[in-house]
Amino acid sequence: LAPAFPKTAILGVGLIGASLALALKRKGISEHISGYGRKAENLRKARALEILDSHFLSAKEAVKGADLVVLATPVGRFSEIAAEIRDSLKRGSIQMDVGSVKGDLVYELEKMLPRFVGCHPIAGGERSGVEPAKASLFEGMRCIITKTASTDEEAFNRVKALWESIGSRVRLMDPAEHDRVFALVSHLPHAAAYALVNTVGDVDPALINMAGAGLKDATRIAASSPEMWSDILMLNRDNVLEFIGLLHENLSRIEDAMRSGDRTALQELLSKARALRKSVEN
Amino acid sequence: LAPAFPKTAILGVGLIGASLALALKRKGISEHISGYGRKAENLRKARALEILDSHFLSAKEAVKGADLVVLATPVGRFSEIAAEIRDSLKRGSIQMDVGSVKGDLVYELEKMLPRFVGCHPIAGGERSGVEPAKASLFEGMRCIITKTASTDEEAFNRVKALWESIGSRVRLMDPAEHDRVFALVSHLPHAAAYALVNTVGDVDPALINMAGAGLKDATRIAASSPEMWSDILMLNRDNVLEFIGLLHENLSRIEDAMRSGDRTALQELLSKARALRKSVEN
Repeated sequence: LAPAFPKTAILGVGLIGASLALALKRKGISEHISGYGRKAENLRKARALEILDSHFLSAKEAVKGADLVVLATPVGRFSEIAAEIRDSLKRGSIQMDVGSVKGDLVYELEKMLPRFVGCHPIAGGERSGVEPAKASLFEGMRCIITKTASTDEEAFNRVKALWESIGSRVRLMDPAEHDRVFALVSHLPHAAAYALVNTVGDVDPALINMAGAGLKDATRIAASSPEMWSDILMLNRDNVLEFIGLLHENLSRIEDAMRSGDRTALQELLSKARALRKSVEN
Repeated sequence: LAPAFPKTAILGVGLIGASLALALKRKGISEHISGYGRKAENLRKARALEILDSHFLSAKEAVKGADLVVLATPVGRFSEIAAEIRDSLKRGSIQMDVGSVKGDLVYELEKMLPRFVGCHPIAGGERSGVEPAKASLFEGMRCIITKTASTDEEAFNRVKALWESIGSRVRLMDPAEHDRVFALVSHLPHAAAYALVNTVGDVDPALINMAGAGLKDATRIAASSPEMWSDILMLNRDNVLEFIGLLHENLSRIEDAMRSGDRTALQELLSKARALRKSVEN
């Protein structure tokens, strides 16, 4: 079988970009992976780990001759990179991203790039960089594709097939719906975890060492990349601010019950949360 | 070697009480474990699992002839149970608890019971009930003992030896210091996790199914027992309210940076949290 995308350019070689590179090679979807990044040392490391076949400090150079171009930097850089590469793309090539924010950005990128498909693989976590990268990262995980009225049908079909070949369960979402859902189930929890760790820091940073499994689990995502996550929070600002507002309210409900000594009301609030949390698998 | 406490009464047969029963038997510290609880069915289950050797729906009956009495119900019931059992204790017996709140409660229990030692094994988590109980639960875990000026020295030494025999690393703390530390590293994170799940519920409970590893980790403790945790939050109210206040402030710092579009300030807040979180083991 001929490779679906003989040459793929990965722009941004972090955990997701590097894992995708490995998966594409392992499944025979690509034969050559070129990488772009701002840190030569990271690119050399990716070469040494056989994640990349060629590497460039210029995105424009990296995309030359590529059948598939993947935006995998922090989302805040997508527009600037799209502007830089648009005139250097191979004719007929497909462009996709792996970013955590969609919304307006998808429409913007669809305008800037000829055959762009917005994608968000739900994988990764708090680890970052090429070391934890693995070809199996996407197996069994969801991948959201934000198909719109302007998405090229063939490009969409080929990108969908790609994600399915590497084990992802594809789900379609409207870009705005995507941002609302992930503001709630991903971006808000990250903001809350960062705030929780800073609260410990405010009182006494040394006390973090008293953390049991509970605090460790609750704050694991606060070890996520600050660069990547400030981009995400900024780009999905309205939704995230709305939901942080709701979190304040829910904390206040617990405080009110405590302050007024209403143990029954407090237990009801906790019971409601517990029932919902128990409805999902660990 | 003679068992250190031939008969032990476990008052409250949940995860901690049942695990302690198993550990005491396995290490030959006790030969007979009597259990008290309010639910006959749970006690029968514990008998069937060979966690208990006898069981009672009366705490007074359960402590008869016991060399060691362990308060292991939700902390809100300790005072009432202490009042009930005080006249039925075996002469020379030792009493301890395994509760998550100390503070004034320790002084109160020291007054009510002849040889009380306040203990808080840092173990358990969101599971509850006898099914997940295991003798090894305390191995390698911290156990805080809140020794005070009125703690009986021999009782303290024997209780300390007990925890060490079952693998715990004992650490002494003043009751008030204990409550402040655990308000921050345990009680606050629980309140925050319950509030975070309720926020998802406010928007759309069905969206909990979109939870990735991040939200799952961040809210695992929201599956903890509401009865146990409303007691803890109520009894450690002042500390917890103070720290929820600080959490509001830390959320507001993130919101302010987002609202004013100050990406640098935002990234600094996240970086500070990340550095502190990364300083502890996963």
